[in-house]
Amino acid sequence: MRASELGERGIIDLIWKTLSGRTGIEPGGRVLPHPDDATAIEMPGGKYLLMKADTFVKRTDAPRGMRHRSMGRKALVMNVSDLAAKGAHPKAFLFSIGVPKRYDSGRLEEIIRGLAEASDKYEIPILGGDVCESNELFVAGFAVGTTEKPLRRSGAAPGDIVAVTGPFGDTAAAFHILLKGLEAPKRLRKKILRSVYEPSARLKMGINIAKAGLASSSMDSSDGLAFTLNELARSSRVGIRISSLPASPLALEFCGLSGLDVSDLVFFGGEEYEIVYTIKKGMWDEALKVSKGCGRSLIGIGEVVPGSSVTRFDGGREIAVPPRGWEHLR
Amino acid sequence: MRASELGERGIIDLIWKTLSGRTGIEPGGRVLPHPDDATAIEMPGGKYLLMKADTFVKRTDAPRGMRHRSMGRKALVMNVSDLAAKGAHPKAFLFSIGVPKRYDSGRLEEIIRGLAEASDKYEIPILGGDVCESNELFVAGFAVGTTEKPLRRSGAAPGDIVAVTGPFGDTAAAFHILLKGLEAPKRLRKKILRSVYEPSARLKMGINIAKAGLASSSMDSSDGLAFTLNELARSSRVGIRISSLPASPLALEFCGLSGLDVSDLVFFGGEEYEIVYTIKKGMWDEALKVSKGCGRSLIGIGEVVPGSSVTRFDGGREIAVPPRGWEHLR
Repeated sequence: MRASELGERGIIDLIWKTLSGRTGIEPGGRVLPHPDDATAIEMPGGKYLLMKADTFVKRTDAPRGMRHRSMGRKALVMNVSDLAAKGAHPKAFLFSIGVPKRYDSGRLEEIIRGLAEASDKYEIPILGGDVCESNELFVAGFAVGTTEKPLRRSGAAPGDIVAVTGPFGDTAAAFHILLKGLEAPKRLRKKILRSVYEPSARLKMGINIAKAGLASSSMDSSDGLAFTLNELARSSRVGIRISSLPASPLALEFCGLSGLDVSDLVFFGGEEYEIVYTIKKGMWDEALKVSKGCGRSLIGIGEVVPGSSVTRFDGGREIAVPPRGWEHLR
Repeated sequence: MRASELGERGIIDLIWKTLSGRTGIEPGGRVLPHPDDATAIEMPGGKYLLMKADTFVKRTDAPRGMRHRSMGRKALVMNVSDLAAKGAHPKAFLFSIGVPKRYDSGRLEEIIRGLAEASDKYEIPILGGDVCESNELFVAGFAVGTTEKPLRRSGAAPGDIVAVTGPFGDTAAAFHILLKGLEAPKRLRKKILRSVYEPSARLKMGINIAKAGLASSSMDSSDGLAFTLNELARSSRVGIRISSLPASPLALEFCGLSGLDVSDLVFFGGEEYEIVYTIKKGMWDEALKVSKGCGRSLIGIGEVVPGSSVTRFDGGREIAVPPRGWEHLR
């Protein structure tokens, strides 16, 4: 069978099936079991060491028109976003860069500058950089952080409020522009494309919400909002009912012009590095306050309910939000 | 300028020049400053967390004839060997696997099995596995370990004994067979090729020598013995005088048949995952005892001397051992 028939998630399943029970730590004994955003081990002093490995491959992860400096920044953001979602303080970043023989060294330097800028922004020192020869450019990133209590994907309970750290839809609009050739006025196009060229991780919010003990579960949304909500529901064995669409103003404007359905853009985008939380019952006001202290406001989008499905209201009817999202190798 | 004009080490220099002074931790303030085998941060409780990122790219790191299971094993060994050289106990391994769309899933499974076998052997749990789409197969590995006192490349002092954890020459012989088409009797060929198909990390020895405080410096030899000796000398600001060639019996036999110079094979091979130590003055007997307790014997090959050059005796004359070694992207 070919890799493309399994797809990214099929291969990940193959990995964990093959590793199951052989790796010294039983899946159930793990602090953050697969498939959580990051992995963790206990350290002396009651803290946890969180680790994340995620690779930026230029051909699939750099949208057309992305500058090399932005590629470096994204390679780090991809990893820090997962630490942020789990509430960890970043401590170290390492990377292996795969370089084609004929690659321009000035472009390489731009990538490194981008990594350095993101390292400054998120205060995560870059401690290791390895180089290897490759047919195509990639940056395999590895981020390490610490926290006293990592947030899991499981833990949501009926009555909790589902919240996101920012609006959705811009990246899907950007993919419609870049991959499907849809048009938008220059000013709008520029702002929309910024979402895929310059993604940010919600690090300050991630650390503070976790520290304050306000969330019952969390997940980085980079696989798309619909996929993320379904995954949180599955991990916590609950249902989620979405009552309010966290649509970005830019996505709404783009849909007004293009005739696209904004809910498609909001739910089925991907590459958005927001955090999706379930906030414990009775703690919403406090969570809002903490989020505003981080310079952004959490957006409540629904609630955790008994059951196992993710639904939303559409014209008064409750319809399913399927776990569709972006997947490599398909 | 093209990447190939800079070469692997030129790009690494570019990385550190670009990152210099920007990454939150001044190079001088690092526990294991670049370019040591691994990087480290201090943890609560006086321990150090050691981290290593090294990537296996099939096209350049899998010698012809290597099985997929061996590729998986090597991808882990490459990283654990650096932890071993620094004396760290392995704690966690993560990887990103880059997979071409049409890659056979059975072969992928073999790679994962190889990773799992090495994980069992070195007792390092595999905690994370990420998948991305790539033009060629790679496994970006990340290993994490802990130690109370990491061994540095610097620290050697005149009078220390230079020692290695095993003989050298087999891998260079293997490259002569695989890349240059040299012939060898079937039995010899098979044993020699094993050195590149099934590399091992000297983990037990690495942990015990460091724990006993016997070494003043150490380095993994995977860039080749000559390069490693020169790098240890440069880092410690000393010279090294080699008095005894750690030639493997197989390499000697191969040179007897092929007419190659065995000292070339010993010094300028690479992909040998032995550790090169400088053993503190007066501690050689104890070091030998500890090494035998690990099932192998350290091999004394020379001594640390004042100065800055690495030399060896050849027919009574003292000649230089240049820092030549294997380098990607050249």
